[in-house]
Amino acid sequence: MARYANVSRQTVSNVLNSPEVVKEETRQRVLDAVEALGYRVSAAARQMRTGRSRLLAVRIETTQDGMNVFDRFLHGLTESAARSGYRVLLYTAADDRAEIATIDQLLGEFEPDGFVLTSTHHGDPRAAWLAERALPFVSFGRPWGAPEDVHPWVDVDGAAGTEAATHHLLDAGHRRIGFVGWEPGSGVGDDRRAGWSRALAGRGLDAGLVLETDGSSAQGQAAARELVERGATALVCVSDSVALGALQVIPDVVGFDDTPVAAAVGLTSLSQPLTEAAARCVDLLTSRLSDRPAVSHVLLTPSLVIRKEPRS
Amino acid sequence: MARYANVSRQTVSNVLNSPEVVKEETRQRVLDAVEALGYRVSAAARQMRTGRSRLLAVRIETTQDGMNVFDRFLHGLTESAARSGYRVLLYTAADDRAEIATIDQLLGEFEPDGFVLTSTHHGDPRAAWLAERALPFVSFGRPWGAPEDVHPWVDVDGAAGTEAATHHLLDAGHRRIGFVGWEPGSGVGDDRRAGWSRALAGRGLDAGLVLETDGSSAQGQAAARELVERGATALVCVSDSVALGALQVIPDVVGFDDTPVAAAVGLTSLSQPLTEAAARCVDLLTSRLSDRPAVSHVLLTPSLVIRKEPRS
Repeated sequence: MARYANVSRQTVSNVLNSPEVVKEETRQRVLDAVEALGYRVSAAARQMRTGRSRLLAVRIETTQDGMNVFDRFLHGLTESAARSGYRVLLYTAADDRAEIATIDQLLGEFEPDGFVLTSTHHGDPRAAWLAERALPFVSFGRPWGAPEDVHPWVDVDGAAGTEAATHHLLDAGHRRIGFVGWEPGSGVGDDRRAGWSRALAGRGLDAGLVLETDGSSAQGQAAARELVERGATALVCVSDSVALGALQVIPDVVGFDDTPVAAAVGLTSLSQPLTEAAARCVDLLTSRLSDRPAVSHVLLTPSLVIRKEPRS
Repeated sequence: MARYANVSRQTVSNVLNSPEVVKEETRQRVLDAVEALGYRVSAAARQMRTGRSRLLAVRIETTQDGMNVFDRFLHGLTESAARSGYRVLLYTAADDRAEIATIDQLLGEFEPDGFVLTSTHHGDPRAAWLAERALPFVSFGRPWGAPEDVHPWVDVDGAAGTEAATHHLLDAGHRRIGFVGWEPGSGVGDDRRAGWSRALAGRGLDAGLVLETDGSSAQGQAAARELVERGATALVCVSDSVALGALQVIPDVVGFDDTPVAAAVGLTSLSQPLTEAAARCVDLLTSRLSDRPAVSHVLLTPSLVIRKEPRS
C-alpha cells in the first residue's frame, strides 16, 4: 500500500499510529488507499500488522455438582492476562475432539496468540494437536504419562497435599487412615492417592484402606461407611464432593479443593493456589510469545485449610 | 486497494474470500498490494472488513465466599454466543469506574460488537456510559430506578421467587415467617424482600419480622436468632449465604440462588434459570446487532428447589 499511495512504509505506519506527524494531504492519500482496500483503520488493524491478536483462549469448565474452583482460576487468568496486555477469549467444548475443532475454528476466526488447556489427562490429544502445529500453549495440569518437558505447564502438587493431610491426621494420633478416591487412571486422582500412601509408608503403616468412587457425595458416603467398618478412624478424600459424603459417616475427614461447600460445612480441605497458578500460566505463555526465556513448568504446593482439629 | 492493484473491488473480495475463482496473476497482484500495506490476509481481516469483531465482552465476577452462580451464567453465555457466531471476551474490574475504563480500552483494542453488563444497580454509571455512546449492550439485571425500557435487559423475578417461598412455608402452616435481607437500597435485595412481604399481605399477615445483614453467614445466623426470639418459626432469606447461617438456628429456611452449598447442606432454595437468562441476553444483543426486531426486556421466574418439607 505504501507503494500504491506513493509514500514510504514508515509514512503508512505514521498515519495509522501517529497521524499528527503526517501532512494532511499525505494522510488523506494513505487513508483513501486504506478505504479502497475496504479495511477499517482501527486499533485492531494496528494489532493485525503486528501479527498479534493479544488474545489467550481458554475453555470454560463446569461440573455437575458445581463443586469446582475453576471460576477462581479463570478470574486469576483474566486479571493476570490483562496485566500483561492480553485478554481472555472463552469457549466451551463437550470433549477433547470438540475442543480441538473449536480451537481450529478460533484460529481461523480470531487467531488467539496462545491457548490455556485445563484438565489434562493421559494421552491428551489436545496437547498433541497444539504441539504438532507449534501453537503456543500452556496447560494447567501436567502432561500425565508424557515426558515432563513435552510442553510448558503449571500444576498443583496433589500428592504433597494429601501427604500433608495424612500427616495432619497421623499427628492427631490416627493410625488407620483410609483414602476415598476416584477410579484409577486419572492422573490427578492417582497423584492424590499416592501422597496419602507415601505418608503412611513413611510411618511404616499399611495403605490398604482405600476405595474408589465416581466422585459423587453419595458414593463418598457409601465408601466411608465401608472403610469405617473395615476399621478406618479418619479419611483423606480425593475431592470435597466425596468428602462431603464421608463427613456424614465420620468427623475426621480431609477434602480437596477448599470449595465454598467445605467452608460452609466446616470441612478441612486442601486449597489450590489458583490465583498463583493462573498468573504462572500467563507468565509461561507470554514469555514464550515474547521470546523471553521461561522455565518449562511450575509445580505449586496446596495448603491445608484446617477447620476443625481432628482427634483420634 | 482495488484502485491501486488495478482490479475491481469484487476481485479484491474474491481474492480474500474465494481465491480459487481468481486468476493466479491477479491474485498475486492483489496479495502484493495487501502485503505492501502490511496487513495479514486472514479471517480476522475479513471480519474487519465487515466491521464486526464477533466479540461480546463481559466482566467476570467473584464473591468473597464463592457462593455465587455467576460461573453458570458465564458458561451459558459462552455457549449461546458460540451458537450465534460470537465469542465471549472476559475482563475484570474492581468497581464501576474501573469497568468503564476497561470497556473504553477494550473498544480501542478489540472493538467488541456488544457488552453484557451484570449486577446492575441504582444509578448505574456503566449503563449510562454505554447508552450515551449508543454502544450495543444488554444487562443481566434490571435498570433499577430507571425506566424499564431505557436499555435491553434480562432479569430473574426475585419477588416472584420469595413470594413462592413464603407461600411454601405458609402452606406448611407457618404464620410467623421472617425475612433475613441485605441493607435496603440494593435493587435485588429490596425486590426479594418485596415478594415475601407481598405473600404475607395476601394472607393478611404482618411483615414485621425482618432484619438486615451484610450478607454473611455469621450475620445471617445472628439475625435468625433474633427473629426466632421475636417469634419467627420460619425464615425466607435473601441469599444462600445468610440462609446457611439461619439454618444453624431453625430448620425451616429458604435460601436464594441454589448454590452448590444449598445442595450440600439440604437447604431449600430458589434457583435462577441462568442458562436461559444467558441465552436471552445473547438473543437480545445479537438481534440488535443484526437489526432484527427484539423485545426490550425479559423477566424470568426462578423455581423453588425443595430439599426438605417444612413443618410448622
